[in-house]
Amino acid sequence: MDIDYVSNLLGEFKAGRLTIEEVLEKLKILPYEDMDFAKLDHHRLIRQGYAEVVFCQGKTIEQVHAIINKLADYNSSILATRATREMYNAVKESLPDAQYHEMARLITIERQKPPVDNERFILVMSASTSDIPVAEEAAITAEIMGNKVKRVYDVGVAGIHRLLAQRQLIEQANVLIVVAGMEGALASVVGGMAAKPVIAVPTSIGYGANFGGLAALLSMLNSCAAGVAVVNIDNGFGAGRMASIINKMR
Amino acid sequence: MDIDYVSNLLGEFKAGRLTIEEVLEKLKILPYEDMDFAKLDHHRLIRQGYAEVVFCQGKTIEQVHAIINKLADYNSSILATRATREMYNAVKESLPDAQYHEMARLITIERQKPPVDNERFILVMSASTSDIPVAEEAAITAEIMGNKVKRVYDVGVAGIHRLLAQRQLIEQANVLIVVAGMEGALASVVGGMAAKPVIAVPTSIGYGANFGGLAALLSMLNSCAAGVAVVNIDNGFGAGRMASIINKMR
Amino acid sequence: MDIDYVSNLLGEFKAGRLTIEEVLEKLKILPYEDMDFAKLDHHRLIRQGYAEVVFCQGKTIEQVHAIINKLADYNSSILATRATREMYNAVKESLPDAQYHEMARLITIERQKPPVDNERFILVMSASTSDIPVAEEAAITAEIMGNKVKRVYDVGVAGIHRLLAQRQLIEQANVLIVVAGMEGALASVVGGMAAKPVIAVPTSIGYGANFGGLAALLSMLNSCAAGVAVVNIDNGFGAGRMASIINKMR
Amino acid sequence: MDIDYVSNLLGEFKAGRLTIEEVLEKLKILPYEDMDFAKLDHHRLIRQGYAEVVFCQGKTIEQVHAIINKLADYNSSILATRATREMYNAVKESLPDAQYHEMARLITIERQKPPVDNERFILVMSASTSDIPVAEEAAITAEIMGNKVKRVYDVGVAGIHRLLAQRQLIEQANVLIVVAGMEGALASVVGGMAAKPVIAVPTSIGYGANFGGLAALLSMLNSCAAGVAVVNIDNGFGAGRMASIINKMR
Amino acid sequence: MDIDYVSNLLGEFKAGRLTIEEVLEKLKILPYEDMDFAKLDHHRLIRQGYAEVVFCQGKTIEQVHAIINKLADYNSSILATRATREMYNAVKESLPDAQYHEMARLITIERQKPPVDNERFILVMSASTSDIPVAEEAAITAEIMGNKVKRVYDVGVAGIHRLLAQRQLIEQANVLIVVAGMEGALASVVGGMAAKPVIAVPTSIGYGANFGGLAALLSMLNSCAAGVAVVNIDNGFGAGRMASIINKMR
Amino acid sequence: MDIDYVSNLLGEFKAGRLTIEEVLEKLKILPYEDMDFAKLDHHRLIRQGYAEVVFCQGKTIEQVHAIINKLADYNSSILATRATREMYNAVKESLPDAQYHEMARLITIERQKPPVDNERFILVMSASTSDIPVAEEAAITAEIMGNKVKRVYDVGVAGIHRLLAQRQLIEQANVLIVVAGMEGALASVVGGMAAKPVIAVPTSIGYGANFGGLAALLSMLNSCAAGVAVVNIDNGFGAGRMASIINKMR
Amino acid sequence: MDIDYVSNLLGEFKAGRLTIEEVLEKLKILPYEDMDFAKLDHHRLIRQGYAEVVFCQGKTIEQVHAIINKLADYNSSILATRATREMYNAVKESLPDAQYHEMARLITIERQKPPVDNERFILVMSASTSDIPVAEEAAITAEIMGNKVKRVYDVGVAGIHRLLAQRQLIEQANVLIVVAGMEGALASVVGGMAAKPVIAVPTSIGYGANFGGLAALLSMLNSCAAGVAVVNIDNGFGAGRMASIINKMR
Amino acid sequence: MDIDYVSNLLGEFKAGRLTIEEVLEKLKILPYEDMDFAKLDHHRLIRQGYAEVVFCQGKTIEQVHAIINKLADYNSSILATRATREMYNAVKESLPDAQYHEMARLITIERQKPPVDNERFILVMSASTSDIPVAEEAAITAEIMGNKVKRVYDVGVAGIHRLLAQRQLIEQANVLIVVAGMEGALASVVGGMAAKPVIAVPTSIGYGANFGGLAALLSMLNSCAAGVAVVNIDNGFGAGRMASIINKMR
Repeated sequence: MDIDYVSNLLGEFKAGRLTIEEVLEKLKILPYEDMDFAKLDHHRLIRQGYAEVVFCQGKTIEQVHAIINKLADYNSSILATRATREMYNAVKESLPDAQYHEMARLITIERQKPPVDNERFILVMSASTSDIPVAEEAAITAEIMGNKVKRVYDVGVAGIHRLLAQRQLIEQANVLIVVAGMEGALASVVGGMAAKPVIAVPTSIGYGANFGGLAALLSMLNSCAAGVAVVNIDNGFGAGRMASIINKMR
Repeated sequence: MDIDYVSNLLGEFKAGRLTIEEVLEKLKILPYEDMDFAKLDHHRLIRQGYAEVVFCQGKTIEQVHAIINKLADYNSSILATRATREMYNAVKESLPDAQYHEMARLITIERQKPPVDNERFILVMSASTSDIPVAEEAAITAEIMGNKVKRVYDVGVAGIHRLLAQRQLIEQANVLIVVAGMEGALASVVGGMAAKPVIAVPTSIGYGANFGGLAALLSMLNSCAAGVAVVNIDNGFGAGRMASIINKMR
Repeated sequence: MDIDYVSNLLGEFKAGRLTIEEVLEKLKILPYEDMDFAKLDHHRLIRQGYAEVVFCQGKTIEQVHAIINKLADYNSSILATRATREMYNAVKESLPDAQYHEMARLITIERQKPPVDNERFILVMSASTSDIPVAEEAAITAEIMGNKVKRVYDVGVAGIHRLLAQRQLIEQANVLIVVAGMEGALASVVGGMAAKPVIAVPTSIGYGANFGGLAALLSMLNSCAAGVAVVNIDNGFGAGRMASIINKMR
Repeated sequence: MDIDYVSNLLGEFKAGRLTIEEVLEKLKILPYEDMDFAKLDHHRLIRQGYAEVVFCQGKTIEQVHAIINKLADYNSSILATRATREMYNAVKESLPDAQYHEMARLITIERQKPPVDNERFILVMSASTSDIPVAEEAAITAEIMGNKVKRVYDVGVAGIHRLLAQRQLIEQANVLIVVAGMEGALASVVGGMAAKPVIAVPTSIGYGANFGGLAALLSMLNSCAAGVAVVNIDNGFGAGRMASIINKMR
Repeated sequence: MDIDYVSNLLGEFKAGRLTIEEVLEKLKILPYEDMDFAKLDHHRLIRQGYAEVVFCQGKTIEQVHAIINKLADYNSSILATRATREMYNAVKESLPDAQYHEMARLITIERQKPPVDNERFILVMSASTSDIPVAEEAAITAEIMGNKVKRVYDVGVAGIHRLLAQRQLIEQANVLIVVAGMEGALASVVGGMAAKPVIAVPTSIGYGANFGGLAALLSMLNSCAAGVAVVNIDNGFGAGRMASIINKMR
Repeated sequence: MDIDYVSNLLGEFKAGRLTIEEVLEKLKILPYEDMDFAKLDHHRLIRQGYAEVVFCQGKTIEQVHAIINKLADYNSSILATRATREMYNAVKESLPDAQYHEMARLITIERQKPPVDNERFILVMSASTSDIPVAEEAAITAEIMGNKVKRVYDVGVAGIHRLLAQRQLIEQANVLIVVAGMEGALASVVGGMAAKPVIAVPTSIGYGANFGGLAALLSMLNSCAAGVAVVNIDNGFGAGRMASIINKMR
Repeated sequence: MDIDYVSNLLGEFKAGRLTIEEVLEKLKILPYEDMDFAKLDHHRLIRQGYAEVVFCQGKTIEQVHAIINKLADYNSSILATRATREMYNAVKESLPDAQYHEMARLITIERQKPPVDNERFILVMSASTSDIPVAEEAAITAEIMGNKVKRVYDVGVAGIHRLLAQRQLIEQANVLIVVAGMEGALASVVGGMAAKPVIAVPTSIGYGANFGGLAALLSMLNSCAAGVAVVNIDNGFGAGRMASIINKMR
Repeated sequence: MDIDYVSNLLGEFKAGRLTIEEVLEKLKILPYEDMDFAKLDHHRLIRQGYAEVVFCQGKTIEQVHAIINKLADYNSSILATRATREMYNAVKESLPDAQYHEMARLITIERQKPPVDNERFILVMSASTSDIPVAEEAAITAEIMGNKVKRVYDVGVAGIHRLLAQRQLIEQANVLIVVAGMEGALASVVGGMAAKPVIAVPTSIGYGANFGGLAALLSMLNSCAAGVAVVNIDNGFGAGRMASIINKMR
């Protein structure tokens, strides 16, 4: 609960401009919007620095369309993840400035560029070309939230010289996102080279005993390098969001 | 075995109206109907307060059609779960009063409204819009079994004020069903707020390490709040049935 | 937040007996007691009908001792689960009316018997003699919370006549707790016989592929009988608490 | 190695009708036929009482077609499991007496009925109508191997009276096959009623935490009833074959 | 329910020697003995050919002692599994003819040798010396139930000639029990050589990824040989019991 | 490789003060110290801001003693995790300024307090008193690395008002560490309240289906709140190190 | 880093033909080619004896096409695994000498046959016809890398004589690859017969509790035969590559 | 079966020095020694180049003692793994030249040094000091089998320069064994640097989600580097044996 908001309520009440019932009612009402099948958390922008992000998986096209339209009434920047092209087509009709990022499965609307600190960049690395869809989800998420992003893809540890050649970038980055499937070893090696925080994203890319990303997930959680924290399998968005929060710390 | 039924048999036998063979035979016969590929438990209505419910998954359209028709000979209220639209189309031809609930994948027939106690309602809550199909399966199940149901959807814990705003409803509800995927934390928070029993339903909605609902399931089983019990992943029907049984206790 | 409490606060404020700072402060303070390593939720008795229960596992003897003593200042009935005899010995020194239930690993203090409705009893069933420790945890939990409890132990389904002989008790019980390890089939059979809610408790008792209770847990979650909900493996307390909540519904 | 065969070889050798090289060669050659991509074990009929059975999954239509044709040169009775209709169509062209069992996914050829002992029957039971495909795979397998089979379907333990009504059949059966998904409790209950061996077949039918049959598998392995042994999930063929071997013991 | 028993009851009733209440009561009473913490199934000997077996794990010494003494009142042959030496010492005091089999962790009492058919023997094989405790549990179980048993230990497939040398025994055995840890391959090889049923027992013996017997269990369940069925990990008793049932079929 | 270092080498070489063999050799030598059983990474302080931390588990007392002594030659601040009291006793003999933190199982040496920015604090929260050992490992790790730490323990979500009362602290913290066992829901709720990064640490505290912390781990990975990243189960050190890195960013 | 390369660099530098900047730059540049979405490791041929192999899964057709074309500029022999026919069609247009191996899902280009030592052959064995796709991936991989390969398919242990008949081949082979699904027992039996290294490849072929190859994987890891090492499930390529490395050792 | 042996048998038979029964008998007898609880495979030395190795886990001290003594009658070099000090003490009494390797838990007897090729060495690497026990098991196994072994311990990837400093050794080694717990990333990095075969050994060393070595195991199986094969968790012996077989290839 916002202290100013409550102080104000109390002032209004003392001044007789609100009844006790009204104050009680208002103390319970917080700034979200009830769409029946969804409750939009308009307060999140103030509380956490970015508006509610739409997770499209499991929602109908109609629901995605309605939620994005409602959000677009109040926000200049919108992000929807795990979106299909069909969802995008529905959204585009009423919001022609929406964009679709096929590989990353993101819908974005960006009506006003946020200010970007070009000195502090987030480095998004992928172990393999096959991990790029998840890496792009992370990178675009970080960009729409107002971060400078650099990408280095296909630097898996099996050819360690490819990775060592990136040493300078790794040392300069302010936050690092490491996206890797298979055995996910890239996170540990980068974690040992970087002085800044590393967000590791396991992916479900790989042969047999990868078990849908479990191998890379366990590998990253057990990283022998400190300074590595992990998000969910294939969760590029989560990594991008976390990196953005850290990158904006002063 | 029903005591009256057996007493009656014994009386008939003593009176010579039944031979010993007939009594032995009848003692083995209980009220179910053998359809060869299915044995309908007509006794269940008396024993447990609601007729046998048809679990359609893994059955052929012909089997579903035949079973529902047979049940419809004896019951005024019928419920079939995990039904496809094709199954419904087959059923509708001979039973035009059957209804299909697309999102919840239910076929219902309701020829006579059961009496409903409007004072005692079941509150069905979902953490996300994506969990609504399972929540609806629970809600409609409870309704057809004669319960008042209220729905509150998309109140996941990441925006705790959306949930706290429902405090009054949570305190008034007689039984609560909490449907959540991802990390399933809603069950624990609601479990700590409610004084009445909470039935938790994990769903298979989520990113990578959700592992088909395993994350939410384990989370709910390990709930730090007492007064929470769990049904199977995505088992909206089971939660609705359990809540109905509890809601009718006096 | 309690409406009366807030109404009252507002009245005090309007009357000038509280400053705006004091009201803001109080709106944030809720009735718990901070012991630094623990925050006792004294409000729970009012909110959920029974005081906070102490989960002793992972706590030091000193912590358990201090928490129980603090709770004993305000409550006439206290329950501590997963307690070792060493913990009990420490508690008993300052609280000589504490009792230890060896098999169930419970410490209880009961200074005033709660009123019990003898018409509505909870039936605690176990599949095997080996499951009795968990069953006793459930039974004693329910008893200290003011319920009439009946016990039927060692009625596993391998000798189905032992179970069928309990049919009358099963039909009369108001709530049922079914405790079973190995394959946990007892929950399904009882679930099909009872008209009242069944709380199933998987135990970790069994041979090899029981995997610490996983077999019974999955079995119970997948029960073909409706009206069954599940608590955590070996969680006798959770079952007893849940059954107590349901048993007190009117 | 067959003793008569080797004795004979040695006689031929001593008699000078075979050279030492020929004997060495023949001692290595056992009666199988090399098709390059498959090695048909024609010896199996003699060794184990039924010809090699074709497991079609993972094989191409051409391979299935070629193997069955080759087997048909030497055997009057052929069984192929996990066969698609496309495989059957290919086989039928050259072997018009082949039959397809859609539900059980079996191709059978039966040119000569084996003798059947009608006194000793195998009882195939299923917990649910949805388990019938696996049950039929077991039943047809047992039949083509020359066993009398009786079927009792949809007798899951949630309506225990449906099962108890089959007591006589259960007691008369010489071998029992219990097919069940969900929690697989049927195996334990039947295992406690029958005096003869019970072969339990878990199926992958069920809601969420069934995990592809794991729940029923673990349940059956942990059965509290002795006299129950388990085959692989959905492995109707394995159960039918095992039951047939046992049923023919004298 | 036993038909003769019920016929008799009905006769007594018709003759007026039993009231209707008494008949109703007796129809519910089946022959088990209620020890409060255990319900002894004295009926099992008649129903399944061997008295109830005591599973000692998870029971107190007092409970084991009491149960075995009660069973000893009615049975000439008693088996208790997973028994510790402490349990045995307690039992021996009141039942001096009890024997303890250290390796197999069994307590046995055998007051009268059952008749044994020496022509039909059960062959118990173990892959490794380390599997002998489980193998002995199986062998002794089968022996006390009146079977001729032969043992062949340490014939794992890594030295296939050791196994091939047992070909004659394998072909002569009437039922085979194969006990193996590690990868459990012995079951498949024996399953391909034997014409009679093979009961496979996975053990928890092995290095790292054995995961408490899971490796051998999955291996045996997936056996490419038909005619193999599996019991629980380390469940020598279950295998011995199953083999005994099969071995006595005629 | 450090550019200045290599430039320097090249200069020395061109000047003839190093032979080509010496340069080649030096290009391969990096600053670590070879103790045969351990290779101390003295370079880590420069590269990552804190000296190598000793993970004691699986090491002998002699090895721990030798490694810490060697590190103490070069560093004013030393941290050893998962240390037993025996290890500490051995270390203390030669390094009397070493300290042991029993609950956190840490050995620390701190000869010179690092500068601390008291404006930016790390908030360490635990769901339960039982999680304190892991929370303390995190807190002490962060402190020895030069961070201001505040602790809030026992604020699990089952009494949400205890948590809401910490709102101000949560909003003021610069980095948050959330330590929770059981269902780990605290991470999601805090993640939704905080604007700063949340490091979640699952613990192995809990009942049955916690499976050694798996429940909390999966829960946290699947958190519906963005801005949460996860470290290994019980890995308080990893969380403290990660939080310290983030907290020092400007 | 290649010593000759660096020596040479240093010589050039001393001779003044390279500036210090150029040397520093070159010391960091290793021979890979940056395609933005991929970094081709042209150095691998020299370092490990075969060019980089393209893992096509998860890559777009355009990416596969571009990578193979780039590799084809520098290499006479190219291998791409997990390729679809669509990928091949795209490649074939610009590289008409590319070949597609449907069953093994490989694209190969072989412009110059490598020298082959026909005395030392790799033996690829499969347990079942259904395992042939993985076996072919292994065999073709080994062949394109310049090895003599012999194939023996469908020699699963259920008909052990089929396997024993291959004894001579098994003893003559220089390296063995054993491909098996289901219970994977073939690896153990062959491992006990062969004197040379055995590379085991579990496949995902099988019924229910195979769990996508987990059964065979665990079985092979737990092999009671020494001299067996395992690669990932269905990883024919990895086995072929490993066998090739070993086969070329002198 | 050995061809010379059988040729000889046939010659003896033809010459009348053996009866047909004797030949049949001998064709079945292969060189192993039956100790009842163990069958010693004396043939293994000839077949696979090293005598049978004793796996002590799960065996009694008496069994270990007896087996080693029997082996010592025929072999000059003996290896027993997973041996406790108690087992060693028993062995030492009758075989005073037996040695115990505490850390590696090995008993060895080496009466005659095998010839060693000092040019071709096996490199045993460990990621951490904590992995040394398993690494030593591998190293000593390889040594007793007649291989030159070099050890490089504590070169985990978190300090990649420690590993890169070993580049020369890595390139010179003839076979590499990589022992690593936690995330096991060392195997992938070494696999990308070495031209020779890498045998990876996951260990059970690590924090929480290591799950007894599962994390390292999955990581190594999913290695992005080719030329890596894996043995069981903590299976140092298996790695040493495999490496020895490969190292002796010419």
